[in-house]
Amino acid sequence: MKIRTISGVLQMRNRWSSVQRSYRLLIAHQIHSIPKRPSFGIAFDIDGVILRGHTPIGNSPSALRRLYNDDSGSLKIPYLFLTNGGGIPESRRASELSQLLNVSVDPIQILQGHTPFKNLLKRFENELIVATGKGEPAVVMSEYGFKKAISLDEYASYFKSIDPLSPYKNWTIKKPISESVPNFDVTSERVKAAFVVSDPVDWSRDIQVLCDILRSGGLPGEKSEHQPDMYFAADDLEYQAVFPSERLGMGAFRIALESIFNKIHHKPLEYTSFGKPNPFVFKNAESILKQLKPLTNTVNNLKEDDKSHEFETLYMIGDNPSVDIKGARQAGPPWFSILTRTGVFRGKLNHTDYPADHVVDTVEEAVEFILQKEGIA
Amino acid sequence: MKIRTISGVLQMRNRWSSVQRSYRLLIAHQIHSIPKRPSFGIAFDIDGVILRGHTPIGNSPSALRRLYNDDSGSLKIPYLFLTNGGGIPESRRASELSQLLNVSVDPIQILQGHTPFKNLLKRFENELIVATGKGEPAVVMSEYGFKKAISLDEYASYFKSIDPLSPYKNWTIKKPISESVPNFDVTSERVKAAFVVSDPVDWSRDIQVLCDILRSGGLPGEKSEHQPDMYFAADDLEYQAVFPSERLGMGAFRIALESIFNKIHHKPLEYTSFGKPNPFVFKNAESILKQLKPLTNTVNNLKEDDKSHEFETLYMIGDNPSVDIKGARQAGPPWFSILTRTGVFRGKLNHTDYPADHVVDTVEEAVEFILQKEGIA
Repeated sequence: MKIRTISGVLQMRNRWSSVQRSYRLLIAHQIHSIPKRPSFGIAFDIDGVILRGHTPIGNSPSALRRLYNDDSGSLKIPYLFLTNGGGIPESRRASELSQLLNVSVDPIQILQGHTPFKNLLKRFENELIVATGKGEPAVVMSEYGFKKAISLDEYASYFKSIDPLSPYKNWTIKKPISESVPNFDVTSERVKAAFVVSDPVDWSRDIQVLCDILRSGGLPGEKSEHQPDMYFAADDLEYQAVFPSERLGMGAFRIALESIFNKIHHKPLEYTSFGKPNPFVFKNAESILKQLKPLTNTVNNLKEDDKSHEFETLYMIGDNPSVDIKGARQAGPPWFSILTRTGVFRGKLNHTDYPADHVVDTVEEAVEFILQKEGIA
Repeated sequence: MKIRTISGVLQMRNRWSSVQRSYRLLIAHQIHSIPKRPSFGIAFDIDGVILRGHTPIGNSPSALRRLYNDDSGSLKIPYLFLTNGGGIPESRRASELSQLLNVSVDPIQILQGHTPFKNLLKRFENELIVATGKGEPAVVMSEYGFKKAISLDEYASYFKSIDPLSPYKNWTIKKPISESVPNFDVTSERVKAAFVVSDPVDWSRDIQVLCDILRSGGLPGEKSEHQPDMYFAADDLEYQAVFPSERLGMGAFRIALESIFNKIHHKPLEYTSFGKPNPFVFKNAESILKQLKPLTNTVNNLKEDDKSHEFETLYMIGDNPSVDIKGARQAGPPWFSILTRTGVFRGKLNHTDYPADHVVDTVEEAVEFILQKEGIA
């Protein structure tokens, strides 16, 4: 197993133009309502902490409401959602959460597993790339600015008989309305990179076609030594969903793809995984939280303010010790980890391998603990 | 990786009652037409030798016709099909082949990957077992005599939310008409064994539910140290289908399941794989070919005849060096391997790692070679 360093990604120019736009709007209506700057921020995991499936858990709506000003409804405490999930654009996820949780969530508060993919725009903006996963993976990539992003559903449809199991799949692919038909020849151009945006649905087809792309230098049936780049939005082996025991996640898919690829190909799979517990995503979250921090200055002073006002504490509230807690621990100060018992972790005391700084039953308790600790409750 | 010995299976009582019935019928109408006993038999691989997809290749229909008597149309040379494929009962496969190849194929001439599963009947006849794979896996098992065989499609439907990806699968499961609804409580009884009958279609669901069954002692959500038995009909990593380059087979699925299971469970997966190149299937093929051998004696003398008249040569005609040729070589004499260039193997000379005894372009050439060698052509 070879994992390519992500330092290249870290060093890439940050492309938060839309983030900054939204930020200005947010700040604009908060500017008069907040008297002082909180020296802390909060990152919430979603699945197993805030929601199970589409149902709020652990009194998450009332917990989140405490982070807003009662009167104006504006943001009082800078917080964001830091999830390894995804599959839809951040804007749509924000609307969904706003509706489910009855609070106003802004798209810049959504950090999904695939959000860091936008940092790769410079490299692949005009290249043919394929994207897979539940939801609308190609739409996500297109919204980030990738000009030639195509879903693996669409891509596979150009290669007759590429999936020998398809006659057994009574499966209608619902094409997202927003995914446009490519205006270039998919069958003659080489794929430069493959992105697993969210949990793949059709594993047999995806593993087959990804192996075809990766071992052919980007064009199934061809021969080439060069492996196109392979990116995973996250590497969760298991996660807590509606079913009582944990379900296999993107990390399981990666293991399946990697094990098979390494058996049929002479060179081991090279890939990059994002998502928690990767320290990069915590660094990224910190930078977004800074932008969310309610200020008394004007927007023009942002840059200076950003540097001079570091957070004293950043809280990571999660249910998965090996993802959320391990990640916060690896990221180090100012991260402080809080483990809930509403998801993967169900232990009485603390987790043995990745003990959290604090353990609570629910996210509501976690927020109460934080506000008490910060002298706000 | 731990592979359970299959000696237990080998020692099990042979349950070829239906085979013997068919045999008697076959012999009955051949008894007067064959003057001498051929001292050889032939085993044909199907995919990449006889057919590609549903299309005959290498002049297979005319090659096979040479093994029948011109006048009576009865079998002149004992032959069978030895394939790692499957998913439908042997009787149905025989009808399909008869139609496609325009010769009369008897069900006893069909040895599919899952055919040896019938030897496990004694052990699991009245136990709850699950079966997966393209086609009608539970129907196959029921036809073998298993009383409580249920497809993984059906099984998973009893456990709400067991597959978190199902909302993304616009997938209608066509239930085989012949698969009956179980008359026992699937959600409270432990699964005793899982059978991969043919290539699984829905890998994400199958890997998830098989992991649930295997690590829970047979009942998803429960806890138990005992792993139910796990059987694979074959272990082909890749095979030649319609697409120009090879497609992933059951061996790839096994690697995916095993790699993931071994990551989420503290004890490595135990399993048994059948199919070529397993020497057991060649032993089995030899015993069936003996039963097919046209005789001048009456049926009552079969047993004695069986012992006294061993084959001098058994020909294995295949396209896959690591499956067909490796298998015949491992099985040893009287097996003689012939490699065709119509499938996986496309080399000019012989295969380096698993050289065949003879290499030809097509199955037609292979049959010509055999008949010449045996002084029949």
